Amino acid sequence: MDNFVFHNPTKILFGDGMLDRLPEELEAYGPKVLLVYGGGSIKRTGLYDRVLTLLGQADREVHELAGVMPNPRTEKVYEGIEICKKESIDLILAVGGGSVLDCAKAIAAGACYEGDFWQDLYIEGRVIDRALPLATVLTMPATGSEMNCGSVISEWECNMKQGYKNDNLFPRFSILEPSLTMTMPRDQVVYGAIDMISHVFEQYFSPPDDNNLSDELCEAVLRNIRTNLVDALEDLENYQARSNLMWDATVALNYLLGMGKLGDWQSHQIEHALSAWYDIPHGAGLAIVHPNLLYYIRKEAE
Amino acid sequence: MDNFVFHNPTKILFGDGMLDRLPEELEAYGPKVLLVYGGGSIKRTGLYDRVLTLLGQADREVHELAGVMPNPRTEKVYEGIEICKKESIDLILAVGGGSVLDCAKAIAAGACYEGDFWQDLYIEGRVIDRALPLATVLTMPATGSEMNCGSVISEWECNMKQGYKNDNLFPRFSILEPSLTMTMPRDQVVYGAIDMISHVFEQYFSPPDDNNLSDELCEAVLRNIRTNLVDALEDLENYQARSNLMWDATVALNYLLGMGKLGDWQSHQIEHALSAWYDIPHGAGLAIVHPNLLYYIRKEAE
Repeated sequence: MDNFVFHNPTKILFGDGMLDRLPEELEAYGPKVLLVYGGGSIKRTGLYDRVLTLLGQADREVHELAGVMPNPRTEKVYEGIEICKKESIDLILAVGGGSVLDCAKAIAAGACYEGDFWQDLYIEGRVIDRALPLATVLTMPATGSEMNCGSVISEWECNMKQGYKNDNLFPRFSILEPSLTMTMPRDQVVYGAIDMISHVFEQYFSPPDDNNLSDELCEAVLRNIRTNLVDALEDLENYQARSNLMWDATVALNYLLGMGKLGDWQSHQIEHALSAWYDIPHGAGLAIVHPNLLYYIRKEAE
Repeated sequence: MDNFVFHNPTKILFGDGMLDRLPEELEAYGPKVLLVYGGGSIKRTGLYDRVLTLLGQADREVHELAGVMPNPRTEKVYEGIEICKKESIDLILAVGGGSVLDCAKAIAAGACYEGDFWQDLYIEGRVIDRALPLATVLTMPATGSEMNCGSVISEWECNMKQGYKNDNLFPRFSILEPSLTMTMPRDQVVYGAIDMISHVFEQYFSPPDDNNLSDELCEAVLRNIRTNLVDALEDLENYQARSNLMWDATVALNYLLGMGKLGDWQSHQIEHALSAWYDIPHGAGLAIVHPNLLYYIRKEAE
């Protein structure tokens, strides 16, 4: 097993009703919150009202950044950074799926950074030593962004999609209520599961190849995803399946599965290039890329 | 899956040579270190000299508490607490196996507490809101104490062995060098593996019984322990087997495997009562208790 460092300080609150603990969790942070969300589905489902009520109970001053799109873009990040700097925001609260979370992480990084976040961090990979505190309420299990320190942002002018990782970008806490995922349409459930499977493959199909715990854990997560994806597609309101898939997504990319392994990430790199041109859902891109890459590699190996 | 909160902030540095990072990791803490260790095997193996050299490089003022025994006792904890209070210790560094780590945790708790640590915390279960920072260098994979917030202490006057858990007792960082475990005799390797297996069983054989990720992860860890215990017993210097067993022990009780499950811990409770009278090694006690408990439960269920 290769040497490794594992340090994941994110606190996970998992289960129905856990969102009600939000005021208590906010106590450790200052009064000004930037609420980041997407295209408005959280308003249709009532989640927006529920979060605002809880923020009100906690006596927080709430600023908002709405309209984060899938494959989140630099424009929205700049907009968020400006609000954080102007309003001296104390905590960013991202409510949504992986795109909203990744956008919020970029804002958290950029809000404490003097230069251009995109050029310096995402393109040149400069290391930052601080970021705004970030918390998340997840509505879509897929990327694992709720318990990792990675973020992927797209720039449409030059058709680039780039990732950035920094220890300061681990969410301080993440609230995972499985029932919030019940409104996800069938396609999104499948895309999410493909993203999880792909995350596990990137760790599993990488050196070293010898007997190690990480591979055993990868197989365990894959088995659980398979069982629960089948169950969820048979009945989209199966709580057991939805809750398992939600926790699968988190464990699939909270870095534990890759300890002592090199990691591959070729499929993800190719998918990033693809969706930077065609703006396709990340899971759909991986569904095209990953099997074909594996097929290509197997042919090469023969 | 039951609701749960998962928060494990311990930083793990795993692999050979990782101990050399000790000075760097110490930078975040004050200058006064209490070095806690056991019966002196770390002196025979040269580990003691290596740690002292690194503490010297970091310009630390070192105080020592030696002679922590298996099934660590209240007397040694009181001795450590007194040093911490008198010398205004900034960080406790535990070098050894689970007993040394558990003793160091009790000292970390007691050093910031005004009342009697044993009566108030271990017997009455009072909640503490702070403890001295604690770091560990592990020499024996078994208890998982290096990445959890639990500690078990024995009191010989009244033949009691009691556990205590508190979030402030997660080690800040733990250094795991597999080669440090190579000098462990065959019996200790077996006892350690039995402790790991028992930890997994306590989580696996507990409600809810339905399809969940925790059970899959438990099976993955059990498979890895089995494979590597066999390999280690065939060749005690098999690095691959030793390193896997070391990481197995940590994952077996860093709480991840029990998320969404109730947990049993009957075998551990019975073993604590047993070894509080007979002072047998914990793993040996579990080897007697756990199979018999499972046999008894199976008969009851039939």
